[in-house]
Amino acid sequence: MRSEAVLTATVMGLGMHQGAWRFRDGDPFDHLGPDYHLENARLAEAGGLHALFLADTLDGSEERYARPSLGALDPAVVLATLAAATERIGLVATSSTSFNEPYNLARRMASLDAMSRGRAGWNAVTTFVPGAAAQFGDAPLPDHAARYARAGEFLDVVKGLWGSWSPEALVGDKETGRYVDTSHVHAIEHHGEHFTVRGPATLPPSPQGRPVIFQAGSSGPGRDLAARHADVVFTAQNTLEAAVAFRADLRARAAALGRDPDHLLVLPGLVPVLGDTAADAQHRKSALDGARGIGPELDKLALRVGVPVAELELDAPLPVERIRANEGFRGSHGFRDAAVELAVRRGLTVRELLAENGGGHLQVVGTPDRVADTVETWLDAGAADGFNLMIDVLPDGLAAVVDEVVPRLRKRGRFPADYVGTTLREHLGLPLPA
Amino acid sequence: MRSEAVLTATVMGLGMHQGAWRFRDGDPFDHLGPDYHLENARLAEAGGLHALFLADTLDGSEERYARPSLGALDPAVVLATLAAATERIGLVATSSTSFNEPYNLARRMASLDAMSRGRAGWNAVTTFVPGAAAQFGDAPLPDHAARYARAGEFLDVVKGLWGSWSPEALVGDKETGRYVDTSHVHAIEHHGEHFTVRGPATLPPSPQGRPVIFQAGSSGPGRDLAARHADVVFTAQNTLEAAVAFRADLRARAAALGRDPDHLLVLPGLVPVLGDTAADAQHRKSALDGARGIGPELDKLALRVGVPVAELELDAPLPVERIRANEGFRGSHGFRDAAVELAVRRGLTVRELLAENGGGHLQVVGTPDRVADTVETWLDAGAADGFNLMIDVLPDGLAAVVDEVVPRLRKRGRFPADYVGTTLREHLGLPLPA
Repeated sequence: MRSEAVLTATVMGLGMHQGAWRFRDGDPFDHLGPDYHLENARLAEAGGLHALFLADTLDGSEERYARPSLGALDPAVVLATLAAATERIGLVATSSTSFNEPYNLARRMASLDAMSRGRAGWNAVTTFVPGAAAQFGDAPLPDHAARYARAGEFLDVVKGLWGSWSPEALVGDKETGRYVDTSHVHAIEHHGEHFTVRGPATLPPSPQGRPVIFQAGSSGPGRDLAARHADVVFTAQNTLEAAVAFRADLRARAAALGRDPDHLLVLPGLVPVLGDTAADAQHRKSALDGARGIGPELDKLALRVGVPVAELELDAPLPVERIRANEGFRGSHGFRDAAVELAVRRGLTVRELLAENGGGHLQVVGTPDRVADTVETWLDAGAADGFNLMIDVLPDGLAAVVDEVVPRLRKRGRFPADYVGTTLREHLGLPLPA
Repeated sequence: MRSEAVLTATVMGLGMHQGAWRFRDGDPFDHLGPDYHLENARLAEAGGLHALFLADTLDGSEERYARPSLGALDPAVVLATLAAATERIGLVATSSTSFNEPYNLARRMASLDAMSRGRAGWNAVTTFVPGAAAQFGDAPLPDHAARYARAGEFLDVVKGLWGSWSPEALVGDKETGRYVDTSHVHAIEHHGEHFTVRGPATLPPSPQGRPVIFQAGSSGPGRDLAARHADVVFTAQNTLEAAVAFRADLRARAAALGRDPDHLLVLPGLVPVLGDTAADAQHRKSALDGARGIGPELDKLALRVGVPVAELELDAPLPVERIRANEGFRGSHGFRDAAVELAVRRGLTVRELLAENGGGHLQVVGTPDRVADTVETWLDAGAADGFNLMIDVLPDGLAAVVDEVVPRLRKRGRFPADYVGTTLREHLGLPLPA
């Protein structure tokens, strides 16, 4: 188990909390321009965070525009802009295996890796929002198994392309005119069920070999995919017990495939809602919840657990039997299971669950020490290798993490004093790919 | 006709000339990292050039890696990185309508537009290199007509998405909690032959309304597409006469569609090979040609004119009848016709054509005054609204343009003293889209 936590910070909309836009200072459309993103990136880098993580959705429903939306901008484009304004921090872009071509995606992420000198990560998602499919043809969203089957083959292709150049290929001899030794650049000749891709990639490996692969599989097929392909697993875990079991299971799956389980990092999402005192933090939370209203949050919960919103009564228990009986569920198993786990274990009503469950993730409303305690406890229990911090309000919630939480973790020996290298892979302590 | 020229600069590999990597100082793989691109962008902006233009290819053949390749990096990612390091210059990314999804591409380009505060352009290409298709399935490259049919529908969808938000949609009232007036955000409900896309876009218009559309149609369907959709047409024109006819034809097609022909700019490619004297320039050209060798250039010509390389004899005339008889030709009509036009008009052998024809484009080997003369002559003849400068060797060929050609054009009143606004559309004198 790790003594020092890996910490990444997620940017979605104007913050993880749906009330962020009303609560924060600044223009309600700040997330649609560069200054906001530059400020977040510089803050996170000043705090030594391992990476900035850009969430994404391809949801096309108009309802989402009723609030600041994650995925308004293409994450790879935003992060490429940030590459020029930062030096060390990792840049992780979410992108879907269901609605991209692997050749294009492999090139895009490798390009981000090249332009950032080896700081890119790709968060491979299968897209579980039904509304996304309507942007890409007549067919409905493929079911869970089909999405994961495609994702597995997609990752095979992308990793094949990223491995299609050996470093020996780069000759560049001006005297003789020999530029590349093409015997060290190999077509991949992939002919699979979903894709036919000849390869090779258009560029050689970056300083970190290839982009770091993030994945968020929680179902059986999702965990298998993660164990086979991921460097980092991002997960929704609302209790220590479930998180310990999840991480142990993932590590066992990786080991069974012959991988060193220490090379598969598990980062649960964590929503810190910070205050100088517990009362201050609670006050911030109440103000945010008041700014949000309960309607949109209830809609999101209904999507997460896979039942119509009309079946969720605010002051009744979560309809767990009904949720578990939904065999046609197409959403994220991770979010669903985390919500059910929390509601059952604590006996929460829907209203209480909405307050406790930070958009699906573990939520700590409290002082910086309280957040540092959680990080420490989860690391020591083997529940996590660190956390993906889902910042409630940006940039000020991130500034609070950097100014108040990071120094405390450093004092406790639980966070690195500085970046250890120049690439994301180095920051994470992961070896170069073979 | 314009008194001041529009000038854009193209980045491909380490320069347009295939001998650039041996001729220039610096690492032969410079184009795979950020510093090279940052230097080009800063130079071009210091010179007041209207835009940096990133060419692209999806050719996957290994042969291309035998030299510094255009399209090694994803243009949108490279330009997004440059967005953070520049303030005014336009950023034009080439991307294919044949091998992308319009929803993704619309979002990517709109994101580049947002992150650059309204400086993005999209060069829409249909991809004519046969090797590209093997990265995207089993089917061969679609024929010319099929590619253009798809491109037309693709552009309809992308422009529909870019127009799916009215500015009135942005409410952002923190008091009432009203964020967006969704009655001003419209699904496009596109159901066409190639695409089904519900829309709307994920973000509102940028400061320039939408990215500027570049296109390079030269065939009949290509010209129709340009007249209907393009703001700027990039074209290969090797003689003044052909260029005058081409521009007049395009303007007539635009007018016939009810457009103001002054809002459709025509930029032929121009390869300046500069020297302080004519002899110096010729010396540079000879050194570059010597560094390149004739083999790869012959291969490129064969692809451009659509005959096997074995049928091109260096010291014989270009086999024009054979070229014209090739009805199954799938390549770029613009490149083919420009090569034939030049060879026939001047009675050139293949070897002479290779020396005269700068990778398919008009080439001026001479002093800065000679290049300025060409710009002036072509503008006054109605042959061009400016040029897309295909820089022979980067960055030094670009530095020579900025230091020697731009000041001469300014002195003659043929180039703006400075950027007139902050968006690419403003630089180009184009109105906001309706």
